[in-house]
Amino acid sequence: MRVFKVVLCYDGTDFAGWQRQSNARSVQADLEDALAPIEGRAVTVAGAGRTDSGVHALGQVASFRLTNPIGARELHQALNATLPEDVRVLNVEEAPSGFNARFSALSKVYRYRISNSRVMSPFQRRYAWHIPRSLDLAEMKKAAQALLGEHDFAALQAKGGKVRTSVRTVTRSDWSEEPLPGGGRLLVYEIAGNGFLKYMVRNIIGTLVEVGDGRRPAASISDMLASRNRQTAGPTAPPSGLYLVRVDYDAAAPVSFS
Amino acid sequence: MRVFKVVLCYDGTDFAGWQRQSNARSVQADLEDALAPIEGRAVTVAGAGRTDSGVHALGQVASFRLTNPIGARELHQALNATLPEDVRVLNVEEAPSGFNARFSALSKVYRYRISNSRVMSPFQRRYAWHIPRSLDLAEMKKAAQALLGEHDFAALQAKGGKVRTSVRTVTRSDWSEEPLPGGGRLLVYEIAGNGFLKYMVRNIIGTLVEVGDGRRPAASISDMLASRNRQTAGPTAPPSGLYLVRVDYDAAAPVSFS
Repeated sequence: MRVFKVVLCYDGTDFAGWQRQSNARSVQADLEDALAPIEGRAVTVAGAGRTDSGVHALGQVASFRLTNPIGARELHQALNATLPEDVRVLNVEEAPSGFNARFSALSKVYRYRISNSRVMSPFQRRYAWHIPRSLDLAEMKKAAQALLGEHDFAALQAKGGKVRTSVRTVTRSDWSEEPLPGGGRLLVYEIAGNGFLKYMVRNIIGTLVEVGDGRRPAASISDMLASRNRQTAGPTAPPSGLYLVRVDYDAAAPVSFS
Repeated sequence: MRVFKVVLCYDGTDFAGWQRQSNARSVQADLEDALAPIEGRAVTVAGAGRTDSGVHALGQVASFRLTNPIGARELHQALNATLPEDVRVLNVEEAPSGFNARFSALSKVYRYRISNSRVMSPFQRRYAWHIPRSLDLAEMKKAAQALLGEHDFAALQAKGGKVRTSVRTVTRSDWSEEPLPGGGRLLVYEIAGNGFLKYMVRNIIGTLVEVGDGRRPAASISDMLASRNRQTAGPTAPPSGLYLVRVDYDAAAPVSFS
């Protein structure tokens, strides 16, 4: 059996998330359902990041095994011909036999978009969090810096997380801004790290927005992390602003055939 | 009675167009329905451009009369609190008593977006026309230039148009391109003129894409216009790529109170 690595882009609006669920639409199920007729039997897909309901992806990575001798290019076309328009396969390649999109991942990049404008553009309503009030971006940038490095992120983890350790390393955490065509500005947060806890990015955003609102000093982030207490962090930001941008693997490992 | 001028932005995907219809959702009806409880009786709204089903607007202009002494700022807030999220009011101002959004308009700007990429981004699927094949943009630019000036645009008008004359003046007609994040390029056409016939912009796009495909020489545009025959032009491009960008009026006329 050969292992395939696929890169996916999806508009998460109409999905209950990545993971297959019994009574709701998921990206994993759509992909598995598109693969089953190709393979002639059920195929199980592993996803690098289990994005939550309403969260988008620009570069989700999934892997699966096939006995069908189909080529990467043909498989790419067949999947895009079958999948609904809100999920697209951007790349297909054969991977080494031990490759697993989830367990082989070395780091991920997430992006969060805030429409900081008086009126929310109809074109942004599914793709950003609307915050009409003024935000102190300079303070939000300072607070974002405090997340860099290895920390126990227990304070920013959803309750009920089942991971062995909540220690993660963040290698990038910064804000940028760009003007919006209809007025106001788009605030864009990017975070890279070796792993992310459930709701971690959305809890970071909820906390950094409290800093931007002047309700929490930027210097308080270190104490918040040290507390390991979810109560000390801000609320969970809405899913519509969040994007899984990229998943990185050992560059030497995957073998590209596409 | 006072006259109000409002600027609207809408995602046309889920509308059957601007104009009120008996059995389908329209922007005009949504706006009239939002105004009725404010005025305490039915209000009729005039729209500058009667955008078709699926066509978007970044700066549609509408006008109506109110006896209610409500201020422009309060009206702005009340409308956005009532209207669905896919229509937003960007500006409200009081206008001179003779102002009519449709008949006072001096010129309009439309934009058309083509996603010229191998795979259509899920985030562009409602907002651009997807053309995966290679297009000769240099030839499309030449063809676009031939539309400038005063012409009889009968060849580019939908059948059954009920206008007195199909002569219009086009003051801008050009293409630009920008890279798309997922690969490929976004081709953006902008056209400005003193008036547009039914389907005119979408028929122009269908014709210019034939030029980009090499199926029609750029130099043939003048003959196509001279024929005044719809059969000589290209097909009607899909509505999802089209945006009413701006409507211009005599700058001295409107009185701003917002």
